[in-house]
Amino acid sequence: MSGFPSDKALVPFVSVENMLALIHRCGIDRCLIELTDAIAADFARWQMFHKAPRVASHSATGVIELMPISDGVSYSFKFVNGHPSNVKRELQTVTAFGVLASVATGYPKLFSEMTLLTALRTAATSALATRMLARSDSSTAAIIGNGAQSEFQIRALAAVCGITSFRLYDIDKLATQRCVANLSGTALKLKVCGCVEAAIEGADVVTTCTADKSHQTILTDNLVGAGVHVNAIGGDCPGKTELHRDVLLRSDIFVEHAEQTRIEGDIQQLDPDHPVTEIWEVMAGVAPGRIRADQITVFDGVGFAIEDFSALRWLWSAVQDTTVTEQLDLIADPDDPRDLFGMIRRYSERNGSNSPSTASTIN
Amino acid sequence: MSGFPSDKALVPFVSVENMLALIHRCGIDRCLIELTDAIAADFARWQMFHKAPRVASHSATGVIELMPISDGVSYSFKFVNGHPSNVKRELQTVTAFGVLASVATGYPKLFSEMTLLTALRTAATSALATRMLARSDSSTAAIIGNGAQSEFQIRALAAVCGITSFRLYDIDKLATQRCVANLSGTALKLKVCGCVEAAIEGADVVTTCTADKSHQTILTDNLVGAGVHVNAIGGDCPGKTELHRDVLLRSDIFVEHAEQTRIEGDIQQLDPDHPVTEIWEVMAGVAPGRIRADQITVFDGVGFAIEDFSALRWLWSAVQDTTVTEQLDLIADPDDPRDLFGMIRRYSERNGSNSPSTASTIN
Repeated sequence: MSGFPSDKALVPFVSVENMLALIHRCGIDRCLIELTDAIAADFARWQMFHKAPRVASHSATGVIELMPISDGVSYSFKFVNGHPSNVKRELQTVTAFGVLASVATGYPKLFSEMTLLTALRTAATSALATRMLARSDSSTAAIIGNGAQSEFQIRALAAVCGITSFRLYDIDKLATQRCVANLSGTALKLKVCGCVEAAIEGADVVTTCTADKSHQTILTDNLVGAGVHVNAIGGDCPGKTELHRDVLLRSDIFVEHAEQTRIEGDIQQLDPDHPVTEIWEVMAGVAPGRIRADQITVFDGVGFAIEDFSALRWLWSAVQDTTVTEQLDLIADPDDPRDLFGMIRRYSERNGSNSPSTASTIN
Repeated sequence: MSGFPSDKALVPFVSVENMLALIHRCGIDRCLIELTDAIAADFARWQMFHKAPRVASHSATGVIELMPISDGVSYSFKFVNGHPSNVKRELQTVTAFGVLASVATGYPKLFSEMTLLTALRTAATSALATRMLARSDSSTAAIIGNGAQSEFQIRALAAVCGITSFRLYDIDKLATQRCVANLSGTALKLKVCGCVEAAIEGADVVTTCTADKSHQTILTDNLVGAGVHVNAIGGDCPGKTELHRDVLLRSDIFVEHAEQTRIEGDIQQLDPDHPVTEIWEVMAGVAPGRIRADQITVFDGVGFAIEDFSALRWLWSAVQDTTVTEQLDLIADPDDPRDLFGMIRRYSERNGSNSPSTASTIN
C-alpha cells in the first residue's frame, strides 16, 4: 500500500517565516537583482502572456482581488486585499498569497505567502524601470513617502541601479526615522529632509511611494527638473494620484499595461488617449526608452500580474534543494484517479470499521 | 517580544488527510445533510451575493478556473482545474482548493483542499434539487454513469432524500463494480443493470453523471417517463451534454444560474431564451417547484460558486474546536503594520548579524 499522503498530493508551501529565511540566506540584494532580471525577462516576452483582467470584489471597507496570468506553460494567481481601515485593528492594509501552477496538468506547483514577496517585486519593478529609463550617471534618489515600501525601494535602487545616496521625506517624521533605522548597517548615504523640495534637490531619480488614498499633489510642476526619472508608485488605484497633471504633460510616460494604468495610475488624470509607452516595448526594442539627457521620464507603476508571475517562478527556482518549504497535503490522490470515494472508504478501513462513515447506513 | 509567528499570521488549513478525518468523524451522511442545508440556506438568500463570473484560463490540455463569490460578509474563491488527459499521467482530472476570507478585513480565514469537498457539495446540490423537485414518494433512483461522482450522489440521495434503492449503469462494467464495492456495508439496495433502459425502469429519480466530454445522448426522449425527476450532472461544459433535446423540451427545467448554465449545461442545446427556473426562486418561494405528479423535472446542474462558498462556510464551522486543521504561517504580521521591512531586519538580528541581508551593503 502506498504512503499517505502520496507525493502527488504534496504542494510546497513557503510560509512567512521561510520567506524571511530565504531572504536572509540569499541576501536581499541578490533577491532583488534576481527578481529584477526575472521581471525584465518576462516583460520582454509580453506577447506570450494571456493577460486576464484582475477580478475585484469591492466592499465598504476594502477590496479583495484575484490576479491570474499565464504564459501557456505556467499559470499563477495572487490573492491580495486592500483594507486601509485594517491599520486601526493592528492588521496589515495589504496582505497577499499566491499559487504557481502547471498549465499542462492544472496542478499547483507552489503555494506562497506574497506580502513580503509583493514588496520585493514592487521594488524590483521600480528598479527595472529606473535601470531602463534613468540617466546612466544617476547616483542620487529622492524617496518621497517613507512607509512600508520605502526600504524595499531603496535597497532595490541601490542593488540594481548602483544608486548610493538617498534623500528622504515623509509628512510623518517617525516613518522617516524608522526607514533610516531599518537601513542602518548598510553603507547607503541617507539624508533626512524637511520638505519635498529639499528632498528633490539634486536628485537624479525621484520615487513617490506615499500611502494616502486621495488625489494628492506630492510633486508639483515646478519641482521636477530636466533629466529626472520619476517612479510614481503610490498612485495605484482610482482616486489616488501623486503627480500634478502638468508634470505628466511634460514627461514621457512609461507604464506596465496601459489599459490597467489608465484606470489605476497617475495617468487617470490625463485624456484616455494620451500617448504612453508600455515598458515591454522598451524591453523588446520596439519603442525607445530615454532618448535625451534632459528628458523627464515617468514610470507610472501600479503593479501588474506579470510581476507576481515572475516573482513566483523566481521563488520556485530559489527554493529548489533548500529547506525553506513545507509540503502541504493539498491534492487528493486516490490510488485510481476515477475512485475518489475509495479514499473515504479506505480511510475508514484504516481507522476502524465501526466508524460513522460506514456504519451510518440507511435503514 | 511577541512569538514568531503571531496568531494574526496563522490561517487554518484543512489537508486532504484531515478532510478524510473530518468525514470519518462526522459520518458522511451527516456531512451531506449539513452541506445540503447550508447550500439551501445560501440559495434562499441568492440576492445578497455578489456573483462574479468565473475566470477561466484555457489551454490545449485543459482549463484552470478561479470561482470567486461574496455575500458582503464572507468571500470565497475556488481554484479548480479540468484536464481530461491527466488520467493518462495517473493524475486527477479535476482537483481543487479554496479559501474563505473575511470581507471586513480581507484576511483569509480558512484554506482547504476542495477535491473531496467539491465532490460532497456537488452531491449535496443534486440532493437539494431532488428534495425540492422529485415526487415526495420517490424511493428508487437510476444512476447513469458510475464514475468518481456516483457514490457521492448515491450517498447524498440516500441521506438527504431517503432514497433506498439504486439502479446502476455504466458503459464500463468495472466502474459499476467499483461503485458497488465502495457502497458495501451500507443497507442500500443496489441493482446492477445491463443498459440505460433497464436502469431507468421504475426509477423515480434519474441522475446522469457521465464523464465523456462530448455531446452524448445518454437519455433519449422515449426513456424518460411521466413524473420522473432528472439530475443532469455530467453535462457541465460547452460541448458536453447528456440529455436529448426533446427530453428537455417536454420538461420543466431548473438551474443554478441561468446565465452560466446556458453556456455550460444541457440547455446549451436550447434557444437562449428557453424558459428555465433558477433554484433560488423555488427556495425563496417566488417560483413553483414541482406542481404535478406527472410532470418531468430536470435539474441541469453545472456547479456554481455559491455551493463552494456554502461548503467552505460549513467546513469552517465544522472544524472549530477540532484537531483537523493545521495552522499555516501565511500572513506577514510585523509588530508595526507599517514596518514590513523591519521583519527582515529583525529576522537577520535573530539569526546572526553577519547575515548576507545586512552585510551585503553598497560600497
